[in-house]
Amino acid sequence: MKPKVSIIMGSTSDLGVMEGAAKILDEFEIPFEINALSAHRTPEEVEKFAKGAKDRGIQVIIAGAGMAAHLPGVIAAMTPLPVIGVPIRASLDGWDAMLAILQMPPGIPVATVAINGANNAGILAVQMLALGDDAIMTKFIQFKESLKEKIVKANRELSEVKFKFKTN
Amino acid sequence: MKPKVSIIMGSTSDLGVMEGAAKILDEFEIPFEINALSAHRTPEEVEKFAKGAKDRGIQVIIAGAGMAAHLPGVIAAMTPLPVIGVPIRASLDGWDAMLAILQMPPGIPVATVAINGANNAGILAVQMLALGDDAIMTKFIQFKESLKEKIVKANRELSEVKFKFKTN
Amino acid sequence: MKPKVSIIMGSTSDLGVMEGAAKILDEFEIPFEINALSAHRTPEEVEKFAKGAKDRGIQVIIAGAGMAAHLPGVIAAMTPLPVIGVPIRASLDGWDAMLAILQMPPGIPVATVAINGANNAGILAVQMLALGDDAIMTKFIQFKESLKEKIVKANRELSEVKFKFKTN
Amino acid sequence: MKPKVSIIMGSTSDLGVMEGAAKILDEFEIPFEINALSAHRTPEEVEKFAKGAKDRGIQVIIAGAGMAAHLPGVIAAMTPLPVIGVPIRASLDGWDAMLAILQMPPGIPVATVAINGANNAGILAVQMLALGDDAIMTKFIQFKESLKEKIVKANRELSEVKFKFKTN
Amino acid sequence: MKPKVSIIMGSTSDLGVMEGAAKILDEFEIPFEINALSAHRTPEEVEKFAKGAKDRGIQVIIAGAGMAAHLPGVIAAMTPLPVIGVPIRASLDGWDAMLAILQMPPGIPVATVAINGANNAGILAVQMLALGDDAIMTKFIQFKESLKEKIVKANRELSEVKFKFKTN
Amino acid sequence: MKPKVSIIMGSTSDLGVMEGAAKILDEFEIPFEINALSAHRTPEEVEKFAKGAKDRGIQVIIAGAGMAAHLPGVIAAMTPLPVIGVPIRASLDGWDAMLAILQMPPGIPVATVAINGANNAGILAVQMLALGDDAIMTKFIQFKESLKEKIVKANRELSEVKFKFKTN
Amino acid sequence: MKPKVSIIMGSTSDLGVMEGAAKILDEFEIPFEINALSAHRTPEEVEKFAKGAKDRGIQVIIAGAGMAAHLPGVIAAMTPLPVIGVPIRASLDGWDAMLAILQMPPGIPVATVAINGANNAGILAVQMLALGDDAIMTKFIQFKESLKEKIVKANRELSEVKFKFKTN
Amino acid sequence: MKPKVSIIMGSTSDLGVMEGAAKILDEFEIPFEINALSAHRTPEEVEKFAKGAKDRGIQVIIAGAGMAAHLPGVIAAMTPLPVIGVPIRASLDGWDAMLAILQMPPGIPVATVAINGANNAGILAVQMLALGDDAIMTKFIQFKESLKEKIVKANRELSEVKFKFKTN
Repeated sequence: MKPKVSIIMGSTSDLGVMEGAAKILDEFEIPFEINALSAHRTPEEVEKFAKGAKDRGIQVIIAGAGMAAHLPGVIAAMTPLPVIGVPIRASLDGWDAMLAILQMPPGIPVATVAINGANNAGILAVQMLALGDDAIMTKFIQFKESLKEKIVKANRELSEVKFKFKTN
Repeated sequence: MKPKVSIIMGSTSDLGVMEGAAKILDEFEIPFEINALSAHRTPEEVEKFAKGAKDRGIQVIIAGAGMAAHLPGVIAAMTPLPVIGVPIRASLDGWDAMLAILQMPPGIPVATVAINGANNAGILAVQMLALGDDAIMTKFIQFKESLKEKIVKANRELSEVKFKFKTN
Repeated sequence: MKPKVSIIMGSTSDLGVMEGAAKILDEFEIPFEINALSAHRTPEEVEKFAKGAKDRGIQVIIAGAGMAAHLPGVIAAMTPLPVIGVPIRASLDGWDAMLAILQMPPGIPVATVAINGANNAGILAVQMLALGDDAIMTKFIQFKESLKEKIVKANRELSEVKFKFKTN
Repeated sequence: MKPKVSIIMGSTSDLGVMEGAAKILDEFEIPFEINALSAHRTPEEVEKFAKGAKDRGIQVIIAGAGMAAHLPGVIAAMTPLPVIGVPIRASLDGWDAMLAILQMPPGIPVATVAINGANNAGILAVQMLALGDDAIMTKFIQFKESLKEKIVKANRELSEVKFKFKTN
Repeated sequence: MKPKVSIIMGSTSDLGVMEGAAKILDEFEIPFEINALSAHRTPEEVEKFAKGAKDRGIQVIIAGAGMAAHLPGVIAAMTPLPVIGVPIRASLDGWDAMLAILQMPPGIPVATVAINGANNAGILAVQMLALGDDAIMTKFIQFKESLKEKIVKANRELSEVKFKFKTN
Repeated sequence: MKPKVSIIMGSTSDLGVMEGAAKILDEFEIPFEINALSAHRTPEEVEKFAKGAKDRGIQVIIAGAGMAAHLPGVIAAMTPLPVIGVPIRASLDGWDAMLAILQMPPGIPVATVAINGANNAGILAVQMLALGDDAIMTKFIQFKESLKEKIVKANRELSEVKFKFKTN
Repeated sequence: MKPKVSIIMGSTSDLGVMEGAAKILDEFEIPFEINALSAHRTPEEVEKFAKGAKDRGIQVIIAGAGMAAHLPGVIAAMTPLPVIGVPIRASLDGWDAMLAILQMPPGIPVATVAINGANNAGILAVQMLALGDDAIMTKFIQFKESLKEKIVKANRELSEVKFKFKTN
Repeated sequence: MKPKVSIIMGSTSDLGVMEGAAKILDEFEIPFEINALSAHRTPEEVEKFAKGAKDRGIQVIIAGAGMAAHLPGVIAAMTPLPVIGVPIRASLDGWDAMLAILQMPPGIPVATVAINGANNAGILAVQMLALGDDAIMTKFIQFKESLKEKIVKANRELSEVKFKFKTN
């Protein structure tokens, strides 16, 4: 089964954050791959990866990096596939990674999600794949429903919190 | 006894912060309700809640949320009641929630308080209710007096701190 | 006709911003007053003003200030009335005024609106007054409706913007 | 010809920025629609729009907004389609819109692009559509090539800039 | 022995920071007083304090506060004495207190020191008193010498750190 | 007549800002000098200046600089006199100069005023000199009174602003 | 005469800033080249450039870019030569370019200068070349002297500024 | 063996960060020295150090400091040698040190690296020395290769992370 989504990160120490995307893809039974490649330490590997991704059947790339996070943008420069960027909090509370991924110049977008938001990167990849796959779309609509149910259930627990003048 | 104030939060994990508002309302014996509803995960519930609040007798809504905190603004869009917004520190030290609540465009204000400032949100709700209720106003004036007394008492403790050349 | 809302600003140069609040009150035919008083240059005047406001029949105070904007908080400290704070952009793009008004310590809230958001401060004052005045509430509900109509009308203009592949 | 992409903005004053997306879609001959709907002033219209988008054949939504920019997130909450968010610089140099769009909580991503980056939002939409449409993909690969040529041509102009010790 | 410097803080919880100023005054054998008074909770006490300070023989006031830190500016408004402001880190890493103390409008300066920099506030008070007291000036010049000696001694310890190619 | 205050700036282009301090000293008839010396371009001149200031009769130094503004701190390191720092807005809206002047390490304070706040730097110098000179103190108390009068007069102009429901 | 320094920029629109570096190199009669290459639009050209620079005799590379400024870091990844980075103010007042260039991860430094500081980038390149070239070093020491003279001359002009109580 | 690189820091408490530079120099067998000297507490020592560095055979200076970090700029002002600046995180998450080192005015550059990036400062010093020393250049090219190998090896570990639908 060939991977449809490729998760890439600047260093294996980012796995704790980036596995959030993997878990979502697992939940949707979408085949994926994970690799660590650094825009700065392995530029040739990154190039080979980015240029070959489409021909290997990859449809969406999720790239996470911290600090002066160039990886998502560098990959986006070398593939026609949509690239989702995950700013990783490694310094300055994540401000540096956020700006280095989001503020791409005209021509080469990176679809940026929240700082450490790999979970949402996975969901966004699912949404892109769902555009051409009704089975994934159906499953995704159910997924959104389940988010609601969790909140509604959580709300019920709130009714057990006791305050004297609380009325619900 | 019907609730006059509604406390709403984006997730039950915000309860630790938002109970600061509940405690103030309890202290003033003002009936209130607490709910968890997410602007993003339960938009229909939020709409039903916001549109029905006034007719259920609610007079003031206190809404807390973190990150891209849309809940207070979304509720304010769908009710004529004043909405008090509490930015919750969940990422970026609270800067994101603060701006996402405070910087509402012309037409739909949210009365924003400090980051994690649910206690002050409760007090602001009391002040609004006091405009039309002399008993609450009287109690509130006493409350402000008691704030002074705590400081004055605390100051006395400072006089016991020993430094060689301290003279009071 | 005694004023119900008091608009106060740190300097007359803030009038260009603060008249946004006055216009809203005028539109709702709510009697109001406007004064310039500085927390730092006329502290005694501010004190006299703040302590006497409630007895003069004022119900809501709107205070705008720039830089290290102490005026709203200083007034809030000396009145039981709700105080709405307007951070005025005078330096640092308004970041200083925003934080100096919003980040009030526990006990003394200021209902803060967006930077230069005097229009929304006026609306918030109307919402507070509407809690005890059905005529204002009715008018305010109409006001919210009219906001929609402006957007809907504006949308129609968009349909005249020509692009080759635009379909609506 | 039914629109495949929907461009939506919080106010018609955002058109100057958002037409950057329209121009890209025009260039790729992708049918699209443009609407102005405010998350805060026309919440019901937004809901009707968002919930109906998929059934009307829309595949990607591009939403731009400024200040406490809730529109992209609010739409993302009510559709399974991927939503691309464009933070519009309206205050605080765009910091507020950027955070209010990017920092979405887990479950509801918005694919955020640079401040005022509507051009890139259009390109990202094209990339998503290209996943299921080889003609668009072929055209997009040509588009990326043309970006290079512009730079290479521009570089030639640099060779005409005269400095005494410049050697190329 | 009447106090010459008055240390004032917004809450007794600030003592851990503000005692840095007290220790310096103790070291220079300058009589001082310490009080906790809140600009927002005890405005009348603050006024009485500020207006009476000069006549009680105080020459310099050191005021520390956190969040929307109004205390130093409010005191500066009501006394001709120089006021030294200490921003206390209580939220937002101290950015709010820093701006609320530093960015005073024309006419009413506060001599601001670094965030949590009460030690430097004490030194600055000593420098002001030294202008009119040769004994303090002489002692202060010795104090500055002793700062050097500490660094020079510390440098000697560095020579014991072992690296293979370290040469001093 | 020997100068009592020394105004120093990093470059003559800062004169437009720094003359705010000179005007205040002129108003108080306090003799002063103005010099341009750069911490980075003329370090020896700065050293000679700083070390000789006290013996030439200078009592207070006002130093203004922009960007990585080292001048005030460098001078403070080499004189026992109090140094007032004025961050000058030259880049990054003044954030860089503000932090480079304010955040001095323990031992060497700089009495920092608002960005471009040379006027307040002059006032602070007057306050320091007034500690040992009753004539200046008397004049300064009058100066503070005159600030009030300007505001009170300005307030009167506000009464002429016409709104339909304005009542004062 | 082969170039020793290579100036590279992301777009020809950056020339207005980057010529500051060229002017310095011209002044020092150091042969250089200027090119526009985009990390995102011409990645292969950038790679060819970076990998060939050393063998073509280049010793120092100066790279300027704005927004999510990846160019300096991407080049640094592919050459052993020192790379000087110039953040160009194109959005967010330059904060994005500054962080995207400065905050490089361990292993691949970029010698970053101030926002729009191409002049200083040129000087830094001269300093690096001077390490192995006594003629350049001698010239550079004279250059530093001349900076002083400009300030000293400028200071003389200040003596002509008239204030009543100015004494120098 | 005379030192070629001088590592200097504002206080011995910075050693934990600055030893990152020492380790790199050790790895490249480049002789170096380490000293603690404060721009503010030992200005004369700093001057003696900076002015004598070149004649003692030093070729590159690495200077680290926190808060209002003047040390790198002050040294750069007094030597023709290239100075590498390391902003040390001591307050405000390092923002203050970063700006106080990076934003040097025209004429006196500091080659700034990431916050706490002493490792990269060491590498940058090696790169500068390699310009005139082929043995160091050869070793440095090997060093860059080894960075790649670490990443490639780390990537192999990623292949052992188990997810159900992971395909590599």
